[in-house]
Amino acid sequence: MERFSDRLAASILRRRSVVCVGIDPDLARLPDGLRATWAARVGELGEAGAAAACFTDFATGLIDALADVAACIKPQAAFFEQYGAPGWQALQRVVRCAHEHELPVIVDVKRADIGSTSTAYAAACFGGAPSLTGGTLPGLDADAVTVNPYLGADGLAPFVERCDEGRGLFVLTRTSNPGGVELQERDCEGRPLYLRVADMIARLGAARVGAHGYSDVGAVAGATAPELLAAVRAALPHAFLLVPGFGAQGAGPKALAGVASGDAAGFVVNASRSIIYAWRERGGDYRSAAAAAAAEMRDAIGGL
Amino acid sequence: MERFSDRLAASILRRRSVVCVGIDPDLARLPDGLRATWAARVGELGEAGAAAACFTDFATGLIDALADVAACIKPQAAFFEQYGAPGWQALQRVVRCAHEHELPVIVDVKRADIGSTSTAYAAACFGGAPSLTGGTLPGLDADAVTVNPYLGADGLAPFVERCDEGRGLFVLTRTSNPGGVELQERDCEGRPLYLRVADMIARLGAARVGAHGYSDVGAVAGATAPELLAAVRAALPHAFLLVPGFGAQGAGPKALAGVASGDAAGFVVNASRSIIYAWRERGGDYRSAAAAAAAEMRDAIGGL
Repeated sequence: MERFSDRLAASILRRRSVVCVGIDPDLARLPDGLRATWAARVGELGEAGAAAACFTDFATGLIDALADVAACIKPQAAFFEQYGAPGWQALQRVVRCAHEHELPVIVDVKRADIGSTSTAYAAACFGGAPSLTGGTLPGLDADAVTVNPYLGADGLAPFVERCDEGRGLFVLTRTSNPGGVELQERDCEGRPLYLRVADMIARLGAARVGAHGYSDVGAVAGATAPELLAAVRAALPHAFLLVPGFGAQGAGPKALAGVASGDAAGFVVNASRSIIYAWRERGGDYRSAAAAAAAEMRDAIGGL
Repeated sequence: MERFSDRLAASILRRRSVVCVGIDPDLARLPDGLRATWAARVGELGEAGAAAACFTDFATGLIDALADVAACIKPQAAFFEQYGAPGWQALQRVVRCAHEHELPVIVDVKRADIGSTSTAYAAACFGGAPSLTGGTLPGLDADAVTVNPYLGADGLAPFVERCDEGRGLFVLTRTSNPGGVELQERDCEGRPLYLRVADMIARLGAARVGAHGYSDVGAVAGATAPELLAAVRAALPHAFLLVPGFGAQGAGPKALAGVASGDAAGFVVNASRSIIYAWRERGGDYRSAAAAAAAEMRDAIGGL
């Protein structure tokens, strides 16, 4: 069994890229041609079915075009869940398409609950729910997921346990949104909350380290607050960092100074809208526009 | 448009009950007869489809039996998500069944993300995702959801905005799991984190108050830490509290002393396993056992 952190490191080294492409499909912003194709099939597939098929079409087209440029992809579950059961199926297909390209998939779910419920969330994301005939079900087959630390370590344990089967997780520390400051930067007995979370991550990840020296228990730390990103890195020298906030959310390559660690960068930088909707600025086919935008981002970050 | 808090207050008063039944189906613990019925249909429905149908059968049977005893129900999304698209459909059917009995439904999803993503989660839970033909989709049609405060107020705003259409939310404060202490009770500049969250809830809910005097922005506060539950109530005199931790998690009626507020109790107490699996202790049909366990819990809490 190859550990998640080793699969991600191998992908980064092979593609010489730390770009993580966020797949956040918004029906209103998809190309007109795609929308028209699937709108014509609403009678046959239903409203949710047609919208979900449109997402699958858009996302698999993107992934095919990005397979040499992106280190990994990060579908955002919320955008799929809006379309109910067909949306969930579309998300499963997106994961499968990425796996056909040997692209690791971080499913962005930001889940966590008490332990027995987190076990079920882990089964939903990684597989393992019991079937009626004594087997187990495949779930979304994510390589890794994002999780929320508010419930504490016992709420994350069922995800952490799955690391030994090749899965990974990224725990929120300082998120990229403006409101992240509100609780996350509060001083908690001499150390800000987001670094208390980093301490928890260090503890949870210490025994889950791969051949490249990275832990399977990573951290989400936004590029929109570079000095806090640096503080997370200082607290977690061996964790993979998932860095959102690049592109549409405003951060640039300078925010990443000093974040690299180890032989395979030790971080991936997520951009969603600035890549998947690049055709709206650049014109042309959405797939080639996305590949060009991702390649520019890869080159702007450099360092590999 | 009736506000969520008024619908919940009306249900409490009509049923003279503050019992919230958590629908957390675990395939291994369902009645053998139900399991056999649906196991026989795996060939036709598929493994996930048969398991999800078994959940629907179990949950709708429970809800029919509990409709006079429970103030509301709280399906736990994780247990349904394990079964993928059919699981999501089962969850939709559970919500619909409760609505046929005019039972408010709190879908326990514990979501939150940056604003644009939380908007999509709110559409998944409350409806409103755009369709390809200019309409919107119904989503799960939850009356209320649980949300996680870690991302701050801007991550909750898209849920809060939906209150003005009759929806509600319950924000985690001090959760019922042992690990909840780890971050939630940290002293944050003179006030524990969970009370910082309570302050955020008070702010978000101040303009969303119904005719009964309760806000649509409620709080989750576990019964397993009664003195902290009392502190949450002190910080939020007008919020509905969703109190987990009763029954299988260990708390009893004494934990609720002083929590009542206003004309309709101002809180609901969740129990899941001790009600939905009551037949395993009591014998007999799972539905009548659940109704009897819920009625005992209602009477043990009393006060209405």
